Amino acid sequence: MAKEKPGIPKGTRDFDPLEISRREHIFNTIREVYRLHGFRPIETPAMENLSTLMGKYGEEGDRLIFKILNSGDFPSKVEDKDWQSRNASLISSRICEKALRYDLTVPFARYVVQHQHKITFPFKRYQMQAVWRADKPQKGRYREFFQCDADVIGSDSLANEAEFMQIIDKVFSQLNIDVIIKINNRKILAGLAEHIGFPDRFTEITTAIDKTDKIGLENVTRELIDRGLTKEAVDQLIPVLELTGTSKEKIQMLQDLLSSSEVGMQGLSEIQEVFDIVDVTPLHCRLELDLCLARGLNYYTGAIIEVKSVDVNIGSLCGGGRYDDLTGIFGLPGVSGVGVSFGADRIYDVLQALSRFPDSTGAFSQILAINFGTRERNYCLPALENLRSIGVQCEMYPEPAKIKKQMQYADKNNIPFVLMAGEEEMKKKLFSLKDMRTGDQQQLMLEQISDVLMKYFDS
Amino acid sequence: MAKEKPGIPKGTRDFDPLEISRREHIFNTIREVYRLHGFRPIETPAMENLSTLMGKYGEEGDRLIFKILNSGDFPSKVEDKDWQSRNASLISSRICEKALRYDLTVPFARYVVQHQHKITFPFKRYQMQAVWRADKPQKGRYREFFQCDADVIGSDSLANEAEFMQIIDKVFSQLNIDVIIKINNRKILAGLAEHIGFPDRFTEITTAIDKTDKIGLENVTRELIDRGLTKEAVDQLIPVLELTGTSKEKIQMLQDLLSSSEVGMQGLSEIQEVFDIVDVTPLHCRLELDLCLARGLNYYTGAIIEVKSVDVNIGSLCGGGRYDDLTGIFGLPGVSGVGVSFGADRIYDVLQALSRFPDSTGAFSQILAINFGTRERNYCLPALENLRSIGVQCEMYPEPAKIKKQMQYADKNNIPFVLMAGEEEMKKKLFSLKDMRTGDQQQLMLEQISDVLMKYFDS
Repeated sequence: MAKEKPGIPKGTRDFDPLEISRREHIFNTIREVYRLHGFRPIETPAMENLSTLMGKYGEEGDRLIFKILNSGDFPSKVEDKDWQSRNASLISSRICEKALRYDLTVPFARYVVQHQHKITFPFKRYQMQAVWRADKPQKGRYREFFQCDADVIGSDSLANEAEFMQIIDKVFSQLNIDVIIKINNRKILAGLAEHIGFPDRFTEITTAIDKTDKIGLENVTRELIDRGLTKEAVDQLIPVLELTGTSKEKIQMLQDLLSSSEVGMQGLSEIQEVFDIVDVTPLHCRLELDLCLARGLNYYTGAIIEVKSVDVNIGSLCGGGRYDDLTGIFGLPGVSGVGVSFGADRIYDVLQALSRFPDSTGAFSQILAINFGTRERNYCLPALENLRSIGVQCEMYPEPAKIKKQMQYADKNNIPFVLMAGEEEMKKKLFSLKDMRTGDQQQLMLEQISDVLMKYFDS
Repeated sequence: MAKEKPGIPKGTRDFDPLEISRREHIFNTIREVYRLHGFRPIETPAMENLSTLMGKYGEEGDRLIFKILNSGDFPSKVEDKDWQSRNASLISSRICEKALRYDLTVPFARYVVQHQHKITFPFKRYQMQAVWRADKPQKGRYREFFQCDADVIGSDSLANEAEFMQIIDKVFSQLNIDVIIKINNRKILAGLAEHIGFPDRFTEITTAIDKTDKIGLENVTRELIDRGLTKEAVDQLIPVLELTGTSKEKIQMLQDLLSSSEVGMQGLSEIQEVFDIVDVTPLHCRLELDLCLARGLNYYTGAIIEVKSVDVNIGSLCGGGRYDDLTGIFGLPGVSGVGVSFGADRIYDVLQALSRFPDSTGAFSQILAINFGTRERNYCLPALENLRSIGVQCEMYPEPAKIKKQMQYADKNNIPFVLMAGEEEMKKKLFSLKDMRTGDQQQLMLEQISDVLMKYFDS
């Protein structure tokens, strides 16, 4: 039998050492910032009960959930009538009890309800794990990808929204990516719907507005009229979406326009307060009120946030907002919260496009000791252990192969230094250390090696 | 409709912040040691093609693989004849193309073959990821658990085996767990099978011997006779398994006994060389030749290793060995290697049983700033940002709640310090810092706060 060519499912990826070290750079940065702000980590299992996930992401979402086949004799547990229907959705509900998580939000809601009695509220949690979606794979869209979420639940304070601005600003400034944070408030949009006389069409209006970036205002106009808004109403709305000026100016204009809408004025006052708190410790990046930002997801009820790269034209790098009822679906009503989610894969693509990964990522061993044979190896081994005890990553080539082969190993693995000890070095109780970049070689005492390394890694 | 009580699939776990910090302690220790020895990380997707996994773990293993249902109209793709058979294994092969990885070894083998042209051999890789098995859940056995593997492939040198002894020793001494490393060599066992006249019963002999720990030598004797060995043969074997003395003494005795078995002498010479290399930089823990160690897995061909806790009676904390043909199943023969796998979940249980987790695990925020209202909050926010810039994890209570509630929040989250600033502090440009453990409170300048923290965390 011919061996099949090994591969992996489409939309999934292997990560090699260089990619892992670059991804760690992203994950560590986000994790570190979350922790600086007092967020605490949780993790949930890759598989949830199917009933936990189904019905939470809309019909389209349900279809994208990866279901796990029950083990054992699963067909015997299906009634004959059902089996003969050969109906995919009916049968999958009979032969699958578990599914892979589709996002981190629903598992978090389930976690909060399940463990509510041991959680201290407000609960500031972060969670960085893979999620799986049976989406059509395409450039930048994977079936296994990684989310980095943080939420504060059980607190209505707008100081939380402001804290997330600080967090976003810190993450991207540490990653050396220029971004704009776009913020809006669903209550302002509700106020606008009232203002133009169509408060009952709020969902249609936000869905259409949300596409402005992609299809332009002209097409948004057409869509709104198609969806039953009058031309007069749309003519009132569009100029508001086109408002220019600073966020402050926009807020002032809206305060006149929406003065008769209670919800609209509430939204404006909320966004003003977020700006006020953020101003206490100013951001590095731009924070901008964007009235076209609407976010498709209907569970947002207050602030909504999206982060865009200034230099790379790509979807949002981070998004989030406030929701009023995270856990109601699991029987615990009234838990309000606000959260953000960083998309690690897209951030990776931006850092790649801008060549902004630090040089050191991808470097593992700092020293390769050349293996000249048993005696020389045994002379070097204690030195390597000594270096490890002060944190130096180093290795000995496992066998006395040709020097050229050992040097190539150092070269291909980006190992910056090679350690050698032959008859002469052993007699003098020294080691020859060769800088692979410059070719410089010097004889050193063991204690001097770390100094050379330190100088190298500082420069 | 009554809301169902939320739960998770049996055999899976949620991890709360304290558990995460303890697990990170384990993962970070292992990762750090792997890196000190020049190992490089890879990651593979949670899902592999079903064909990659099936047939690699024996019949029992195949049954324990979690299969993922194809999305879309999966029943329509099954021929009617097959569908009507209602045969679980036939139908699952028709409606599932993917499955969750069962271990990290087979995905690694697949990775090596798939990426062979960009890998520099010897390849020292580590991989720390979850694996899934549809095993019956029980105490200490989960359906989602975590493996921490490292392997060196493409090198026959026994220096690799010796390096893994150093790695195991370092991991457990850093985790503060006393262990014994048990080592044996499958070639010695093959030599014994030759010696007693049953070289063709090697598999049965090793399978029986492997149970010595669980069922005792008397039952091993019975099993061997049941499996067709003669009483004389078993009577020759058992005394060897009962050999006492140091590893050196055992090797000497075996050298006499197995002198006519080429493979046996080869095994002895290999194990002697491993001991010799290890002796160059002596271990902290005991390393012991255990002739009853056989390891059920038949792909091991040389050294086999298991690590046991000295203080806690639990299965092995780490295991591994040398194999001659990792990747032959995927069409790349002749790739030999040696590797170990640490079981993070069992190590967790041992640290728990011995109360050996460091105190600091579970501590997140170091300071909670009390929220007395807008002015006080705005006075504290820049101070918190300043502390974060020097790495202090801190947070502000999000709203001006009752002081008691805020203090309880600090208490329940193990936050050691509380920062307060009222009229008096603001006037003096100071902050009151309260040590939650002692109740001591002092007024400090911002610059002094980090000194107090440093003293606290050093003590």
